[in-house]
Amino acid sequence: MILSDKIKGYILSNGLITPGEKVIIGVSGGPDSITLAHILFKLQYDLDIQLHIAHFNHNLRKGSKADQKFVEELAVKLNIPFSTDSWENADAIKKGSIEELARDQRLVFFKKVAKQQGTRTIALAHTEDDLAETVLMRILRGAGLNGIRGMLPKRKVNGLTFIRPFLGLSRKEIESYINKNKLLFKIDPTNNQSIFYRNKIRLNLLPLIEKQYSPNIKHLLSNLSKNISADFDYLEIQTEKAFKKHAQISKNNNCIKFELDELQKQHTAIKRMLLRSSIEYLKGNTNRLTLKHMQEIEELILKGPNKAIVNLPGNIIIQKSQKLLSIEHNT
Amino acid sequence: MILSDKIKGYILSNGLITPGEKVIIGVSGGPDSITLAHILFKLQYDLDIQLHIAHFNHNLRKGSKADQKFVEELAVKLNIPFSTDSWENADAIKKGSIEELARDQRLVFFKKVAKQQGTRTIALAHTEDDLAETVLMRILRGAGLNGIRGMLPKRKVNGLTFIRPFLGLSRKEIESYINKNKLLFKIDPTNNQSIFYRNKIRLNLLPLIEKQYSPNIKHLLSNLSKNISADFDYLEIQTEKAFKKHAQISKNNNCIKFELDELQKQHTAIKRMLLRSSIEYLKGNTNRLTLKHMQEIEELILKGPNKAIVNLPGNIIIQKSQKLLSIEHNT
Repeated sequence: MILSDKIKGYILSNGLITPGEKVIIGVSGGPDSITLAHILFKLQYDLDIQLHIAHFNHNLRKGSKADQKFVEELAVKLNIPFSTDSWENADAIKKGSIEELARDQRLVFFKKVAKQQGTRTIALAHTEDDLAETVLMRILRGAGLNGIRGMLPKRKVNGLTFIRPFLGLSRKEIESYINKNKLLFKIDPTNNQSIFYRNKIRLNLLPLIEKQYSPNIKHLLSNLSKNISADFDYLEIQTEKAFKKHAQISKNNNCIKFELDELQKQHTAIKRMLLRSSIEYLKGNTNRLTLKHMQEIEELILKGPNKAIVNLPGNIIIQKSQKLLSIEHNT
Repeated sequence: MILSDKIKGYILSNGLITPGEKVIIGVSGGPDSITLAHILFKLQYDLDIQLHIAHFNHNLRKGSKADQKFVEELAVKLNIPFSTDSWENADAIKKGSIEELARDQRLVFFKKVAKQQGTRTIALAHTEDDLAETVLMRILRGAGLNGIRGMLPKRKVNGLTFIRPFLGLSRKEIESYINKNKLLFKIDPTNNQSIFYRNKIRLNLLPLIEKQYSPNIKHLLSNLSKNISADFDYLEIQTEKAFKKHAQISKNNNCIKFELDELQKQHTAIKRMLLRSSIEYLKGNTNRLTLKHMQEIEELILKGPNKAIVNLPGNIIIQKSQKLLSIEHNT
């Protein structure tokens, strides 16, 4: 099958794009995103969409300026409007995960472009290989259901809708498309060094597992993630219902209380997700929250004396009183 | 902490044993099950339980007769009643997975001993290491939520209750207990050969991951499995409710029908589990049922014409009619 037909089918069957929509394509300049730009360019009239190319220059290595130029030239060649920006303070970062900060900066950029262009849809070129790497990485770093569901073909984040039309595609299929169509692309040199964790998994661990343990591992991991997405989605819906019904949110949004009785009645799975949701509501994320913390809170609910407290990462304090459990965010 | 105290705590907090109960200990003769026999022997009055040792000789290698004798001698030494049996037809097995058949044979043996002893509780010596291996193996072979929840501390199977008091214990803790108490045990020589899949994972892949990617991997996999157990349990309860409400079971138990309308109303996660449950109800297992099959059935429900059929492994036929979806087991 022609690749563009396959992608068209994937976009339609997963409801990724509505006719008339404007789609911003995130293009790094690598083979995956270059192929995505070319394929969406081919499909634009068929799908009735307008295109816009966006490139964010992270400024983290020497060739990044050249990559920016390269993507701009591609946009001119394809006659697709183009936005770009660069991260000027990358050098100044002293602590924290640079990878995470770079991702945040890119998100800010995407938001700006989306606002300027009057759309919410950003297309990214993640493949089945990326999905498999992500799932395996999260398993190795420790994850629950939320973590291993991996990337979704369509996901709303902070008012943006990220779509991933290539999630059913292998990197090999992209390579053969690139070769057949003699497309030019830029290779990120850090991609070939086993320095970073993801690259180590991509270049060493996954090939080893493919060769010696499970030739089909990428497909299996991507299936696992798809399966789990549905399960997690259901749990999320049930949790939202319970949250709306039982969470008592303080006026200044820094404290959530639950009746202990009501919490006890919930199934462990829902109880844990209610606690996670509350923490996410209060501090914006559940970073560094582990199963052990969850078990401490459950212990508190079951056996803790009146006024007993559990302290959690990120200044979250959980306190049990006679009839209530309160989750407070101290800033 | 003394190991027997730790195990006592685990048994009590997980509600594994009721006072007055008789517990059959499955003892292979390896270090884990020998330790389990010794620890439960120490705790028998404390926990108020009666013990019985059971050994099944799979007859698959030379030393198996000696292991059987060894376990019998241990039972005599500890003054614990003993049952044993051996698999006489192991040689005749031509096709199928010998591992799976051996497990089935052992289950038959456990059922017989449990009936004779008037109990349902069988204690097995699986450790956190075994759990981690199982989860990783299932990920590598392809699994959904059901597969990766791994082994549970307490699980009912076919009228038996398997308990695993060592699931919070590492193999290292057992080794140090064995050394300290100078316990004798038998080593299964096939355990040290990287021939079988599980052993390859135990002896090669897990140590490699521990060394190069995730020093804490066993604990993380066991946490993942614990987390997912709760989620799966919740989904199972919700599915059971929906099954009781909507499944129309034929008199001779070979066909289950659902109103298409009702099936459509269910969330994808529950819909898939309803279909899995139906197949399990009809043929006793869901072996070889993949995500792709599930997607085919979902496609059938959504777009299949009247009388359209999907054939599944194990003689299961799914048919769509005007208002019903029928799942039939042809034997």
